[in-house]
Amino acid sequence: MFIMDRFPPPVGGFYVAETRKLAVIVQSGTMDKLLCAFMLGSTAVAVDFEVHLYFTFWGLMMLRKGAMDKAGLPATYKHMEEQFKGKLEKMNYPTPYEMLKRMKASGRLKLYACTPTMEMFDINREDLIPEVDALAGAATFLDIAADADITLII
Amino acid sequence: MFIMDRFPPPVGGFYVAETRKLAVIVQSGTMDKLLCAFMLGSTAVAVDFEVHLYFTFWGLMMLRKGAMDKAGLPATYKHMEEQFKGKLEKMNYPTPYEMLKRMKASGRLKLYACTPTMEMFDINREDLIPEVDALAGAATFLDIAADADITLII
Amino acid sequence: MFIMDRFPPPVGGFYVAETRKLAVIVQSGTMDKLLCAFMLGSTAVAVDFEVHLYFTFWGLMMLRKGAMDKAGLPATYKHMEEQFKGKLEKMNYPTPYEMLKRMKASGRLKLYACTPTMEMFDINREDLIPEVDALAGAATFLDIAADADITLII
Repeated sequence: MFIMDRFPPPVGGFYVAETRKLAVIVQSGTMDKLLCAFMLGSTAVAVDFEVHLYFTFWGLMMLRKGAMDKAGLPATYKHMEEQFKGKLEKMNYPTPYEMLKRMKASGRLKLYACTPTMEMFDINREDLIPEVDALAGAATFLDIAADADITLII
Repeated sequence: MFIMDRFPPPVGGFYVAETRKLAVIVQSGTMDKLLCAFMLGSTAVAVDFEVHLYFTFWGLMMLRKGAMDKAGLPATYKHMEEQFKGKLEKMNYPTPYEMLKRMKASGRLKLYACTPTMEMFDINREDLIPEVDALAGAATFLDIAADADITLII
Repeated sequence: MFIMDRFPPPVGGFYVAETRKLAVIVQSGTMDKLLCAFMLGSTAVAVDFEVHLYFTFWGLMMLRKGAMDKAGLPATYKHMEEQFKGKLEKMNYPTPYEMLKRMKASGRLKLYACTPTMEMFDINREDLIPEVDALAGAATFLDIAADADITLII
């Protein structure tokens, strides 16, 4: 994007504004990290980013049907879990799975499940929520990430 | 930056060296992660980076007055906390808050507090340390991060 | 890389395809995070990335001789450790240290140990595995990361 400011346009005379990309590896399976990733992802799709979420390890386990909304807080903050969940409910805050479905509805989210993790934890495609777009190894993610404007692991 | 090596200078004949940018989401509120973020940030301002720290979730809770220097180690390493804090004291290592204030004094740190988290945890502006530059949502951070040389979440 | 598609080649007529770079700060010392970093790193070297791993804090402690293969799961998942390790063994999955040595053998991995952490934890060069390429402060890492295609902290 910044290149547009600094170089004259190519022959033909104009630039096509490129879509910005956010690529996130979701390694964590706790509620705080999922909410953090999904708040970032939701905002990103709202401002027209293309969002790529690659779920691996504990994150991948949260892609199993019914798992995501049972996610809790990590050991360090376990004592605050009940209070935290109560507060979110009172705020009518969407659950992680609802947030994911809304992002998906934008048409700008792609969801990947890490194949080596699936083997490691004996998880099959049919165990996963239907929103998953592709089963993929790390090479796929590296290609996406190398080309992304922002890459994070959470 | 790397473009300078590869393309001839534009008409006019020279490039202005651009300031490099480091953007970090501080999601964690434990001492080890704060120290890690602040060591990186301190080094970055020392070598003339512009540093943007966006505090969210447990990180944001550490921006409340008096909170940062009470941060402890996460559950996994809790048993080492006393020894670790003692060692740092013996080294006269600056506390996290001291590190933050030094970064701030460089004029190259911008500090953001995540507004959705503030609502979630009932935190107001006057609860936060005065070093906070702006209350901001994720869209602000995405704009900064998309343009940064290094973006991390810790 | 993407610039190649958009700008005409410089005088001389061609581009040399640049090596892509992955830079990772390994701040964690738990088995799940090490495996995640090393799976990513292994894949990256296999598809010809240059990989830079900078070990700090709990990560650095895992560079001490004999430490890496004793790494366990974090408190949140401690109850699954035995089952998880058993599964990996049954799969003949390489240990973290074996993965590291294979990456190293590719000639495309550079391994850094964080000097401030070494001081903080009283660790000397001779305590560390021989695969470490350099003892380095954060400034070294920032230079590498600012120039990398993907930068992560795990």
